Amino acid sequence: MSDDPRAGPPPGDPLAPSAAAATLEAIRARTPLIHNLTNLVVTNSTANALLALGASPAMVEGVEEVAEFAALADALVVNLGTMSGARARAMRLAAAAARAAGRPWVLDPVAVGVIEFRSSVAAALLDEGPAVVRGNASEILALARLSGASASEGPAGRGVDSRAGAEQALAAAAALARRSGAAVVVSGATDYATDGQAVAAIGNGHPLMPRVTGLGCTASAIIAACLAVRSDRLAAAAHGMVLTGLAGELAGAASPGPGSLQVALLDALYGLTPAIVRERGRLGRAALSA
Amino acid sequence: MSDDPRAGPPPGDPLAPSAAAATLEAIRARTPLIHNLTNLVVTNSTANALLALGASPAMVEGVEEVAEFAALADALVVNLGTMSGARARAMRLAAAAARAAGRPWVLDPVAVGVIEFRSSVAAALLDEGPAVVRGNASEILALARLSGASASEGPAGRGVDSRAGAEQALAAAAALARRSGAAVVVSGATDYATDGQAVAAIGNGHPLMPRVTGLGCTASAIIAACLAVRSDRLAAAAHGMVLTGLAGELAGAASPGPGSLQVALLDALYGLTPAIVRERGRLGRAALSA
Amino acid sequence: MSDDPRAGPPPGDPLAPSAAAATLEAIRARTPLIHNLTNLVVTNSTANALLALGASPAMVEGVEEVAEFAALADALVVNLGTMSGARARAMRLAAAAARAAGRPWVLDPVAVGVIEFRSSVAAALLDEGPAVVRGNASEILALARLSGASASEGPAGRGVDSRAGAEQALAAAAALARRSGAAVVVSGATDYATDGQAVAAIGNGHPLMPRVTGLGCTASAIIAACLAVRSDRLAAAAHGMVLTGLAGELAGAASPGPGSLQVALLDALYGLTPAIVRERGRLGRAALSA
Repeated sequence: MSDDPRAGPPPGDPLAPSAAAATLEAIRARTPLIHNLTNLVVTNSTANALLALGASPAMVEGVEEVAEFAALADALVVNLGTMSGARARAMRLAAAAARAAGRPWVLDPVAVGVIEFRSSVAAALLDEGPAVVRGNASEILALARLSGASASEGPAGRGVDSRAGAEQALAAAAALARRSGAAVVVSGATDYATDGQAVAAIGNGHPLMPRVTGLGCTASAIIAACLAVRSDRLAAAAHGMVLTGLAGELAGAASPGPGSLQVALLDALYGLTPAIVRERGRLGRAALSA
Repeated sequence: MSDDPRAGPPPGDPLAPSAAAATLEAIRARTPLIHNLTNLVVTNSTANALLALGASPAMVEGVEEVAEFAALADALVVNLGTMSGARARAMRLAAAAARAAGRPWVLDPVAVGVIEFRSSVAAALLDEGPAVVRGNASEILALARLSGASASEGPAGRGVDSRAGAEQALAAAAALARRSGAAVVVSGATDYATDGQAVAAIGNGHPLMPRVTGLGCTASAIIAACLAVRSDRLAAAAHGMVLTGLAGELAGAASPGPGSLQVALLDALYGLTPAIVRERGRLGRAALSA
Repeated sequence: MSDDPRAGPPPGDPLAPSAAAATLEAIRARTPLIHNLTNLVVTNSTANALLALGASPAMVEGVEEVAEFAALADALVVNLGTMSGARARAMRLAAAAARAAGRPWVLDPVAVGVIEFRSSVAAALLDEGPAVVRGNASEILALARLSGASASEGPAGRGVDSRAGAEQALAAAAALARRSGAAVVVSGATDYATDGQAVAAIGNGHPLMPRVTGLGCTASAIIAACLAVRSDRLAAAAHGMVLTGLAGELAGAASPGPGSLQVALLDALYGLTPAIVRERGRLGRAALSA
């Protein structure tokens, strides 16, 4: 976290580690059902992360099933990592059904801005009112441009890796948040979450995490679990990043390489306690100009 | 196992650990080819479990290929975990081809009873004569109702997790077995398998197993490997549950969390020996009223 | 390696461990973007292997996206492991776009020769000019026959496992290479790579590797990363097999079973250094009659 406040946060601040600890407790207590319409690379790792944390994942993706299931689940994740026409239709149906049923949903615009088709799908999905959008800097810059929220230029991504730093994308994220009503997360060495006014900075994580595929997708799914138990969009987004980053940090410290980290991350999510989150969570407020 | 007989089973009893040990030996000797038409979450973990055990997995799922391949393979698994119209057509084709070629097949009705489309697919697949059906209590209760085998009510599932105990579903499982001709397995803390008359109870397993995604799917695939080398449907179903549960039990004892368990389970399947199965397998007969 | 030359290779020989070490350095320096159109079993493990090695993977597979993305990426892998009509169309589009953009691509003809549809897709893809074809002996024998390059008979595979040894397929591989212009790799206890004239033999590997699903697919993806930084097709193919086999060898030595090996392989790819490749790489020239 780049902006450690000199004094601790005020009691009850939703952007403090103690609030993230309370969100973890609520997930464990309620076992929210999370509907994942995610990419084909991370189905297994996402389901395992949600189970390890204490949520109940379900991967439902057929056009015949998604609308019915989105209304049953407590929250939905839509992840654009592996697209096709059929998946795009299912995503629209699922997001619209979640919205109609009053269920929060998370948009993870993987590699948006790189491929024309994907960009058009992402822009259309934004109209279905996601509660949270999470991406890396290149993705958030691209989505902000696509939505007309921001004309800011930044280095375009080539694949799923960002060429821009999270700080560069923060102004675009805030503009996108104001335009869409979603809380917007920019992942990076420090993660930022913003609702367009307030900004949370999250300092947990580990340098080896980008060498494991799909940990951003894992974060998006964990944010959905947080949204299922906490209606404050900005807080849920920030707490999801703390829980994911802290688990990655604990796992990374014990891992000689990315294979071990992927395994240890699941053990760490399972072993997280509210006390660990309160003590080691690095969450605070930052300024929009950060 | 809830029903430990006071005396050991009679020699040659197919529902005894020694029979499960013989099935393991036969799998290792014959390396049966198992055709998996399974869900997108567990393709990797299922293939790895079959390889670790000593079988030869193949994931073939296109409508253009499944019928041809089902007739080549030694057994087939059809798993409803991630459905679409195209997958439903492929499943019908594969099951019909397996039946026509005299190959046994296993139906894993993931989350049946929760979503309308999936329930209709499951009911249609039952008509293709699966040798074994394996599900949790909620799934078996739902499938029994769908098939008209049982009017018993039980708590419906919401996602892939059961809200009912295995014992509650045993009567419905027996009715479903009599109606369909399949051996029916109800997974739970104690697993039950029944052909409608006899009941096997399996006591192996570990409390951490439900925190790893798809271990029920793994059990279904391992049952298919057992069916490929043993024509007795009830015994094959029970042996598959013993082998899976025992590997999970050995893995769980050495695992701090679900990430480690998923890895250790594959090592344990690879390291299982007939002697370990005879000594630590917990398999016996139970009563239908259990 | 079955043919250890009595003297070391000449300086600068592209079929020597030092050349494979240089390829590894180039991958780490350039982080090539690898487009994977691969099967549903290995998406996660392939992406993680490429990330661990130092490349940047992207799994893009929809017909709406593949042509655009193949021209952006540095190399492409087309893997036939789980086929459908839609995937076949995407594969044709991707391969044609890669060819038109001058990008090298790798064909992994999983289980070709076993299923009619897959054989026809593989034959059509050969016409799009892959830079490298990698398969086991049964697959290469089948593909050589399909392409008319070889009339040699060998034991057909049943599933994804080969029933023939790599040595049996070497003549067919050379004929296929001459006919197609691709370098052809035959995986086995010793791996061979040939351009139809020269032959490389690779002795790295571990007996436990075939008990982990998709390590052949991993090798194909790593070959693509080598092709992205090295235009010599035969050298890139051989180097990819050395890097994969050496990582598997290091991982296997420390693994009690295939679950551990899958994890340790990623750590080993991450930990590989040019010095390790120079010292422990087993790469040399062999004769076509081998």
